[in-house]
Amino acid sequence: MTIGSFDEIRALMATMPHADTAAIEAAQARDGQLTKPPGSLGRLEHLALWLAAWQGANPPRADAIGFLVFAGNHGVTAQGISAFPAEVTVQMVANFQHGGAAINQLAGLAGAELTVIPLELDRPTGDFCAGPAMSEAETCAAFQTGFDAVKAGDLCCIGEMGIGNTTVAAALAAALFGGDGATWAGPGTGLDPAGVNHKAQVIDRGLALHRERLGDPLQALACLGGREIAAMAGAILACRLKRVPVLLDGYVNCAAAAVLKKLDDNALDHCRAGHLSAEPAAHRLLGALGFDGDLAPLLNLDMRLGECSGAAVAALIVKAAVATHAGMATFAEAGVAGKDA
Amino acid sequence: MTIGSFDEIRALMATMPHADTAAIEAAQARDGQLTKPPGSLGRLEHLALWLAAWQGANPPRADAIGFLVFAGNHGVTAQGISAFPAEVTVQMVANFQHGGAAINQLAGLAGAELTVIPLELDRPTGDFCAGPAMSEAETCAAFQTGFDAVKAGDLCCIGEMGIGNTTVAAALAAALFGGDGATWAGPGTGLDPAGVNHKAQVIDRGLALHRERLGDPLQALACLGGREIAAMAGAILACRLKRVPVLLDGYVNCAAAAVLKKLDDNALDHCRAGHLSAEPAAHRLLGALGFDGDLAPLLNLDMRLGECSGAAVAALIVKAAVATHAGMATFAEAGVAGKDA
Repeated sequence: MTIGSFDEIRALMATMPHADTAAIEAAQARDGQLTKPPGSLGRLEHLALWLAAWQGANPPRADAIGFLVFAGNHGVTAQGISAFPAEVTVQMVANFQHGGAAINQLAGLAGAELTVIPLELDRPTGDFCAGPAMSEAETCAAFQTGFDAVKAGDLCCIGEMGIGNTTVAAALAAALFGGDGATWAGPGTGLDPAGVNHKAQVIDRGLALHRERLGDPLQALACLGGREIAAMAGAILACRLKRVPVLLDGYVNCAAAAVLKKLDDNALDHCRAGHLSAEPAAHRLLGALGFDGDLAPLLNLDMRLGECSGAAVAALIVKAAVATHAGMATFAEAGVAGKDA
Repeated sequence: MTIGSFDEIRALMATMPHADTAAIEAAQARDGQLTKPPGSLGRLEHLALWLAAWQGANPPRADAIGFLVFAGNHGVTAQGISAFPAEVTVQMVANFQHGGAAINQLAGLAGAELTVIPLELDRPTGDFCAGPAMSEAETCAAFQTGFDAVKAGDLCCIGEMGIGNTTVAAALAAALFGGDGATWAGPGTGLDPAGVNHKAQVIDRGLALHRERLGDPLQALACLGGREIAAMAGAILACRLKRVPVLLDGYVNCAAAAVLKKLDDNALDHCRAGHLSAEPAAHRLLGALGFDGDLAPLLNLDMRLGECSGAAVAALIVKAAVATHAGMATFAEAGVAGKDA
């Protein structure tokens, strides 16, 4: 299948499946029989039900885990908005391929299959201060690359690498949820306060230039970029269609998820937030996506690396949820007296 | 060695080793060279330094992990302070031994060696509303059981099982840090509000009965109990003497740690808080132990099972810290440009 237009993305979204209520009920019934006080495993119990709901099976599994990392380059780096030079994107992709990055170690720990997908790194997107980052065709091509990267599995963690992409993510968040550059810009890989202020001004220039087109989430994505963000949106949608539960990573990944959320308020029901990034606006962005309260991010470890690293650590929590739900004995099996017995 | 008196416990505590500053410096130097923006792995970086400090080596390891679960029975269950009957303690120990409990599944996931140590389950401690829970000799014997259970290793997670022991832990917290039953009592395995109120009154009766002896942490431990709490205190101290970093579990485990903290304010420097239990006073207790701010618990997953389960999940985070610190390439190894290059 070729995704050739934004209308085709919208048509795909209209086919999204719903949670499997029978699997949820089966998981709830099993949970109530396990040798523990009701509710005492807290969010691990909720995660088991969520996995069952989207896998459509109980007990759920967490064996086949995919980590997908998309890499892109951004013309807006010409505006001096990152502490690292743009050539680091391709260098880090090589580091991923040689097994030297954080995400390689975390994939080994989780027993996950890591797939790294560079997107035309020698052809950065346009500088959004000068014009659109991508055409509709370029946006759809990147979206399709992400869409096609998803395999069947028990869980998928999605992340990115791209020097300059917290600037793009902040601009996209502003376009989708309101506010300006100062609302959404943060230090990224390590800007000082003056650098953050400059980044906010760059974002404001982009928002002003493209304001006519930002009311539509897919047009906003095309105007601001970038390829890895479009690809992550495609991957999140593909997971939904294949019933693969998704752990979201940090700020940039959540900006990609936000495009889908604005297209359909239920588009992220198969997702959970892996962690709260240290990027200052991450909390605001997660809240806009509905990941607060009972759905607050699983971890808050002050991480801000990207690369899918926060979701990768959260995948360990999901594995703990499945191990306990699927492996524990019931009260009857163990001969243990229940509550108020 | 036999620990025959409280003075001998105090003498052991005077021999506690300190953090290895050379290992910390070596870990800091390595961290600064890894292919990531400085600080971007957040608390994972702090954990790697903490492990190096106490293991006295860099890079630190997280291969030999021990889970120690101590079980005890409590005379105060005669006061009707638990939602579960006292015979569940021995039933759950059998469940641990047959591999059916939550902690068995989590040990399998973490690759940890689980050791379950029942402490005279057929001889509950005295009801603290009627007299001391334990004599000095009984307290020391239980403390020694925990002390002797610790082997050399990379990390130790310590937990418990004992119907009634959140009542004992709450009483001990009140004795050590002030406040009354209402300050420290919570639902435990699932009391309703009237049950929590009754539990608080039972605690107040115990505190009143023993008030002359509660000024000394070890006398408070003897008066209020229980054996598994004394054993956990012994195990935490033994880990310090063997330079084994410790992840604390929830409310009852923290009450055991509190006895050591009150004896020596530095006694828990080799420990980190694995998680924030859902028991309402857990946050207060962790704060009294110094586990707030940069040392806040690693996880907040609304868990309240005990059995070492919260620490066991947190051990996965520690493994992630070691995997990244020890396994990542340096900028030089990977040929990646550094910040502001």
